[in-house]
Amino acid sequence: MNLQLDDQGRLRHFLDIAGLPRDVLINIMDTAEKFSGVTEQAVKKVPLLRGKTIVNVFFENSTRTRTTFELAAKRLSADVLNLNISTSSASKGETLLDTLANLQAMHSDMFVVRHEDSGTAEFIARHVPPHVAVINAGDGRHAHPTQAMLDMFTIRRHKGSDFGRLRVAIVGDIMHSRVARSQIHALNTLLTGEVRVIAPRTLLPGNVREALGVHVFHRPEEGLRDVDVIIMLRLQKERMSGALLPSEHEYFQYWGLTQERLALAAPDAIVMHPGPINRGVEIDSVVADGDQSVILEQVTHGIAVRMAVMAMSMRSSGTEGAA
Amino acid sequence: MNLQLDDQGRLRHFLDIAGLPRDVLINIMDTAEKFSGVTEQAVKKVPLLRGKTIVNVFFENSTRTRTTFELAAKRLSADVLNLNISTSSASKGETLLDTLANLQAMHSDMFVVRHEDSGTAEFIARHVPPHVAVINAGDGRHAHPTQAMLDMFTIRRHKGSDFGRLRVAIVGDIMHSRVARSQIHALNTLLTGEVRVIAPRTLLPGNVREALGVHVFHRPEEGLRDVDVIIMLRLQKERMSGALLPSEHEYFQYWGLTQERLALAAPDAIVMHPGPINRGVEIDSVVADGDQSVILEQVTHGIAVRMAVMAMSMRSSGTEGAA
Amino acid sequence: MNLQLDDQGRLRHFLDIAGLPRDVLINIMDTAEKFSGVTEQAVKKVPLLRGKTIVNVFFENSTRTRTTFELAAKRLSADVLNLNISTSSASKGETLLDTLANLQAMHSDMFVVRHEDSGTAEFIARHVPPHVAVINAGDGRHAHPTQAMLDMFTIRRHKGSDFGRLRVAIVGDIMHSRVARSQIHALNTLLTGEVRVIAPRTLLPGNVREALGVHVFHRPEEGLRDVDVIIMLRLQKERMSGALLPSEHEYFQYWGLTQERLALAAPDAIVMHPGPINRGVEIDSVVADGDQSVILEQVTHGIAVRMAVMAMSMRSSGTEGAA
Repeated sequence: MNLQLDDQGRLRHFLDIAGLPRDVLINIMDTAEKFSGVTEQAVKKVPLLRGKTIVNVFFENSTRTRTTFELAAKRLSADVLNLNISTSSASKGETLLDTLANLQAMHSDMFVVRHEDSGTAEFIARHVPPHVAVINAGDGRHAHPTQAMLDMFTIRRHKGSDFGRLRVAIVGDIMHSRVARSQIHALNTLLTGEVRVIAPRTLLPGNVREALGVHVFHRPEEGLRDVDVIIMLRLQKERMSGALLPSEHEYFQYWGLTQERLALAAPDAIVMHPGPINRGVEIDSVVADGDQSVILEQVTHGIAVRMAVMAMSMRSSGTEGAA
Repeated sequence: MNLQLDDQGRLRHFLDIAGLPRDVLINIMDTAEKFSGVTEQAVKKVPLLRGKTIVNVFFENSTRTRTTFELAAKRLSADVLNLNISTSSASKGETLLDTLANLQAMHSDMFVVRHEDSGTAEFIARHVPPHVAVINAGDGRHAHPTQAMLDMFTIRRHKGSDFGRLRVAIVGDIMHSRVARSQIHALNTLLTGEVRVIAPRTLLPGNVREALGVHVFHRPEEGLRDVDVIIMLRLQKERMSGALLPSEHEYFQYWGLTQERLALAAPDAIVMHPGPINRGVEIDSVVADGDQSVILEQVTHGIAVRMAVMAMSMRSSGTEGAA
Repeated sequence: MNLQLDDQGRLRHFLDIAGLPRDVLINIMDTAEKFSGVTEQAVKKVPLLRGKTIVNVFFENSTRTRTTFELAAKRLSADVLNLNISTSSASKGETLLDTLANLQAMHSDMFVVRHEDSGTAEFIARHVPPHVAVINAGDGRHAHPTQAMLDMFTIRRHKGSDFGRLRVAIVGDIMHSRVARSQIHALNTLLTGEVRVIAPRTLLPGNVREALGVHVFHRPEEGLRDVDVIIMLRLQKERMSGALLPSEHEYFQYWGLTQERLALAAPDAIVMHPGPINRGVEIDSVVADGDQSVILEQVTHGIAVRMAVMAMSMRSSGTEGAA
């Protein structure tokens, strides 16, 4: 039994790319395509979730991600509550469930959850009643599935729907990245031709090749050759102090995406980044702002993909008739 | 002249249970019954307060209470502003009135006020123009009338409308509790058969028997016998340091609601708590999550009761025709 | 080319009074007059900006100003996002543009910007795409144009549309006041008969007479004689420590608006203040609350003027057909 799907195989919660079949991922992208049109209209709003209550429950602060979910919810006409809950004041699992039970008792229809502990969104999904949907907005180092799907949507927009033809490289701190983990699962599920990770040995989980079926490179000069898609990861600067990394300057020297390194990729390769970018650290400004960069498109598609996931899981869990 | 009622005896502000006649309390519950249906619909929204501006003016932080008022207002289709104002930066009465005068000048229609000083909501109500309604969301140790009314609504749902048949026990820190004070006034006004308070001597006002007409017990083993409703109060842990209370462990030993103590009450007694609960301090988890607990129902009814109070006071003060 | 106007001379951004022609200022006041009616209706809402996304981007905290913009946007039926961004964490121009680029990518339609650095709103306006409008909600010591226009609107309401007949005095810390600067530009553009500034020498820019064409006075007893409008500025108490000013008490002695000083003005003079007022510092309570004070009216008109500016700049920049 897959917690994320209902008995007809439709999305019920959105917690993790791992475990979702290919047709669900494709369905998310197809639905996002429709909502993409909505956000380009003069009136960027559909009445689909009118009268529904969506609660952004953020135990880890993130204005940026919260904003995209809030906008997506408002454009679906839902009522949105933003709760920033510090984990210091509410740290025990029991208290977490009491908090959620209270929000459910207020007839909330959906929780968008971000938490610093891996597995929190799934834990919550196991305890909500049938009419409540849970969306994972990032849990520890585990998963960030809406980010992965907006990336897949962006790739499909540029490279078409046949992922089998594509070589995709993910560059940076793979070890600590929930984004990378979800991207790799999504790329594998969509049958991507070749998935490469390019990372310093200190920032790569030991079993990544076996566990995730990717090709591993330790130098961008090798790994970037002929790829169609480059996904740069954000450098979490707090890693610096942990002796896992040299200085920002050195990092840029060895790992930063420059024009020269980009030239190794396919001529029409696209450059992606989950944002916010550290200019001059993991990516050169010339590349970030260049013709091949689709970084801001990712942000745009993020709204449509989140609208899609919200509308789909609400339909499955609840009372809405159509997306 | 009752500040809370207009000249036709309808609710104008909602500041304190004391001073409100029985038929107003019953009217609040009847109106909440209608709104209860709204929150169970697919579209949990009525257009009753569309275009009205409701301002949550919270001088004392409370995400939980503020959230219920915000949801209630949104489900009535009002526009909601949340203002958290620290009392340290705005401490003088004059400044308080200036703040409110400014919000009034923006054509606000209702203030939902929480303040650490008793009497603040009434003070504000005395200074607003005729079209503005004031709802007390908790003032010092004085009153928390919406909490009391959601409790009455919950009792009526389970025990019927004849409060004369009921024995109700309130257990815990009566002295510092605005919730208890409002509950006792409401229970008295609704002609409850017997109202008991069960509290350590250190946490009981000296004149509670005379002033509020309740039966006083100092041991749960005596006070809980044959009651139909048990209302546990939240233990404010900061009282611990004040030497008014022993350790949490000892408190639970003497005062905590366990299965054994619950068995002393009537077999169909219900267990209530204003939340958030301290598991293992004032209440055992087995009881909090047990069949007789209606704690989460209280949260649900809290939305409907707040919708009722908002709609009723707005109708009286303003331009709306019907609830 | 005027950044603030489109090629048909209509408002496109609202950044600074300086540079706007008289007919635009009059148009803002005429449009605000219409919205003034809306805020007095039972349903204080028009569907003009439904489905539009307005982002309050506040790098400098101001609950009060943010609230008026939020209310104005909601009464135009727009979706509103509030972002408080501390300048300490996002200090570089590059990062500022990245933040804005991300918000644009989410299909935001308007930025309402407050920043402690002069010129920030204009800087942003130079970098947004054609469909995005920028409103300056205060930038450094430079400009606060919506405040100035709500002041002009208030004056017109009381004194009629012929500003040529009027003597207007602005009293207080002219040097550090973006409000004063914008007011002087607006009064000059509206061809006000005489604009006076009354300020201590330490709080007056050296070239104010030449640069802004005002009459300078150093004593209220001289400057207030026969004026029709008195605008008191707020005393920023942090100036005290800078040795630019004596104590609050002394300030009131020399500069505070008392009944006696008010009596020097025309008998029907009005008293204005951008708020929040410091009672007993720059203004006596008797005057602030007196018959000639229009301070709270200014707050009321602030909503209508902000609705006007938002509606006008959105119409010009975008897809709306009519205001």
